[in-house]
Amino acid sequence: MARPFPAEHSETLTLIQRLLAAAGAITQAHFRCDEPPQNKSDAGFDPVTRADREAETAIREILTLERGDDAVQGEEHGLQRGTSGWTWYLDPIDGTRAYIAGLTSWTTLIGLADPSGASVYGAIAAPALGEVYLGWPGGACLITPAETRPLHVSDRDDLRQARASTTDPFLFTPAEEGAWTHLRATAQMTRYGLDAYAYARLADGGLDLVVESGLLPWDKAALIPVVRGAGGLACDWRGVPATPVGGQLLCCAGGGIQAQALIALRRSAE
Amino acid sequence: MARPFPAEHSETLTLIQRLLAAAGAITQAHFRCDEPPQNKSDAGFDPVTRADREAETAIREILTLERGDDAVQGEEHGLQRGTSGWTWYLDPIDGTRAYIAGLTSWTTLIGLADPSGASVYGAIAAPALGEVYLGWPGGACLITPAETRPLHVSDRDDLRQARASTTDPFLFTPAEEGAWTHLRATAQMTRYGLDAYAYARLADGGLDLVVESGLLPWDKAALIPVVRGAGGLACDWRGVPATPVGGQLLCCAGGGIQAQALIALRRSAE
Repeated sequence: MARPFPAEHSETLTLIQRLLAAAGAITQAHFRCDEPPQNKSDAGFDPVTRADREAETAIREILTLERGDDAVQGEEHGLQRGTSGWTWYLDPIDGTRAYIAGLTSWTTLIGLADPSGASVYGAIAAPALGEVYLGWPGGACLITPAETRPLHVSDRDDLRQARASTTDPFLFTPAEEGAWTHLRATAQMTRYGLDAYAYARLADGGLDLVVESGLLPWDKAALIPVVRGAGGLACDWRGVPATPVGGQLLCCAGGGIQAQALIALRRSAE
Repeated sequence: MARPFPAEHSETLTLIQRLLAAAGAITQAHFRCDEPPQNKSDAGFDPVTRADREAETAIREILTLERGDDAVQGEEHGLQRGTSGWTWYLDPIDGTRAYIAGLTSWTTLIGLADPSGASVYGAIAAPALGEVYLGWPGGACLITPAETRPLHVSDRDDLRQARASTTDPFLFTPAEEGAWTHLRATAQMTRYGLDAYAYARLADGGLDLVVESGLLPWDKAALIPVVRGAGGLACDWRGVPATPVGGQLLCCAGGGIQAQALIALRRSAE
């Protein structure tokens, strides 16, 4: 594939790749270095690392120069307002628990929403795996050191044949957990612990259903364009097409799985 | 490190690396190729792939030539009796669910037990990550394309600071799940979905406690020497030092965590 994405999206997607390279240089340098994380939470354990903060700063420095009129919303450094109506969403390390445990499934998430609030460009980068999943209106691709190739969800479209995933079933409310219990009992198999990387694997056809709650805009904004660009569906637990707002997300390879999953999830919708 | 392991273990560990290379050529070639798995189970979903079977065959062919007097017990091709008293345990793809979902945490497991039944050499290889974790009596190392370095468990030795892991909490019996609920509520954080790779990360200090049940000899035989060689502890849920026999396994970075974990686990010991 000579050019991985259409010309009209090239400028934005090339910029996203530059942002990811700047963040990746920092996150990779600190990975498996045994620096103790800080805890952001008084009540529990919400770890943040120096790599989180420095990587988000590196992305913001480039955006200030290149897209100074856009708003920026990031997990570590808050909201910077803009004038263009476009908003960048940044999560420098999604899966900080995986990162500090030396697991390779952590990702860097970048999403870009248009003035209507719709998330239209997204990237899920897994630096420790050398993988970048990019999504735009109408397409998605996977870029590795070895190849660049288009992403397509699987053609499995029955929940009973589906490979389902959620990061941690104990993060659900009791009502949500009931819905998950229904789903996992129906699906062919389940996988846990993947954070945003699950959505990347859905876009590449390895998983067919990912369901989570408690997500934040800087998570969701990046995931939605990758899943949709690969031909998948992203909605809330009522079936309404997903936007960066709202904690509950359901992503599916096809409409059949989505309809079956919503039977369980609607009862626990926000 | 010029030589990663002591001279008296060099012959066996070099053979194990050859076995892993033969298996890895097959498993890597089939990874993410979208070949539908077969289902070994009438009642549920127990996937097996062509790569599982061919990789185990490749390992057995070398062992027949090099260690024809040893017994071989493998997940896919059963028991071949020997005369030396030594037994090789083979799991060509541990984490077949991860493998078919295109996740990189699947591993190839090779263990070698001496005539007393004690597992003394072990290897956890993660071909998709380019990592081989080797354990022998008194030591363990990680071999990657970039480096070879000794493995050491972390010095965290309080369950409240520990990073805990199990593959799937829904694989536990109700009594076992009660014990896990106690552990995860006490530990600092939990990770799921890692299969044997969790024990590799414990040996490298990223996780501090891994607890599972329903394991089989070809899983456990490989894990125990890696964990012990890195300075960790491997026992059953009563605290008895682990052997390849028995489904329940607890591996810890230190004796403090082990003692705290056993308070919960003993109630659900087999």
